[in-house]
Amino acid sequence: MNFNMKEAIEVLERTPQTLEYFLTGLSDGWLQCKEGEGTWNVSEVIEHLIEAEKTNWIPRLEFIIQEGESKPFPSFDRYSHLNEKAESSIERKLLAFKTIRALNVTKVKELIVPELHLELTGSHPAFGVVKLRELLSTWVVHDLTHTAQIVRVMAERYRADVGPWQEYLGILKKK
Amino acid sequence: MNFNMKEAIEVLERTPQTLEYFLTGLSDGWLQCKEGEGTWNVSEVIEHLIEAEKTNWIPRLEFIIQEGESKPFPSFDRYSHLNEKAESSIERKLLAFKTIRALNVTKVKELIVPELHLELTGSHPAFGVVKLRELLSTWVVHDLTHTAQIVRVMAERYRADVGPWQEYLGILKKK
Repeated sequence: MNFNMKEAIEVLERTPQTLEYFLTGLSDGWLQCKEGEGTWNVSEVIEHLIEAEKTNWIPRLEFIIQEGESKPFPSFDRYSHLNEKAESSIERKLLAFKTIRALNVTKVKELIVPELHLELTGSHPAFGVVKLRELLSTWVVHDLTHTAQIVRVMAERYRADVGPWQEYLGILKKK
Repeated sequence: MNFNMKEAIEVLERTPQTLEYFLTGLSDGWLQCKEGEGTWNVSEVIEHLIEAEKTNWIPRLEFIIQEGESKPFPSFDRYSHLNEKAESSIERKLLAFKTIRALNVTKVKELIVPELHLELTGSHPAFGVVKLRELLSTWVVHDLTHTAQIVRVMAERYRADVGPWQEYLGILKKK
């Protein structure tokens, strides 16, 4: 096991501002491009991250602490952000993500006493028994997977433009 | 073709500070982890990015402008940074990257007149004829591929820790 609270929080604290720095002021070409039909653009990835802050991580952590394995936690709709088409700018979305993440990190620090809580178990609707520390680890890797997605979506835009160098660029090979 | 100079420079200008914000102050666990034998840790990726700023992008752009296709440009050793084990901190490496990138972006803006230079051709030692705009596009996607690599290497560290959620996390599937 590599997980520890301090290191996990290091990543959770950095993701929103990292994305804010990278994405603020980018041209629409970068923000609107997709990998194809049914995939998300950069802006939709940020909406998804906000949605998960609202309805996934903290509610599930609280649910495990309160209910244990007694009942499965409500499932999380990974596509719900696509239903409410927020027309706000990327800057407002990044600010919303940064704000709710800061609140949630504070909440986690108050809520979780590593010595007491990390091995607590809950009941995932699809997976069955899961540990609280697995949920925390997943939160971290979820940040990383969507950061990777953002740069991959952007790279895809230049797939043809790089010409023969495509062969050397790993990010364009993942298809 | 999606490439244009202004949008390409938007990414080139943002990468160093984005990585600086994300990586500064991270625990050694994150900075030293690898995907396995023969792979790079986060710190080695930054060394590679610095090396490419010194010996790849600008020298090759200048070479194309000066020599055209008359002789192939010197090949770039993608592993040369591994020979000189710089023992400096990640913060110093990130500062070095930010500094040389800022110089190089300035140089590109001075050097390249899009209307005149984008379609110029050079001779790549392995690929044969390449266009200057393909080299510029590759510079951008090279930033994106190594940013993706950094977060993928970090995610790998928690592969076992996420438990059954591994199934939902795309970044852990790319093996």
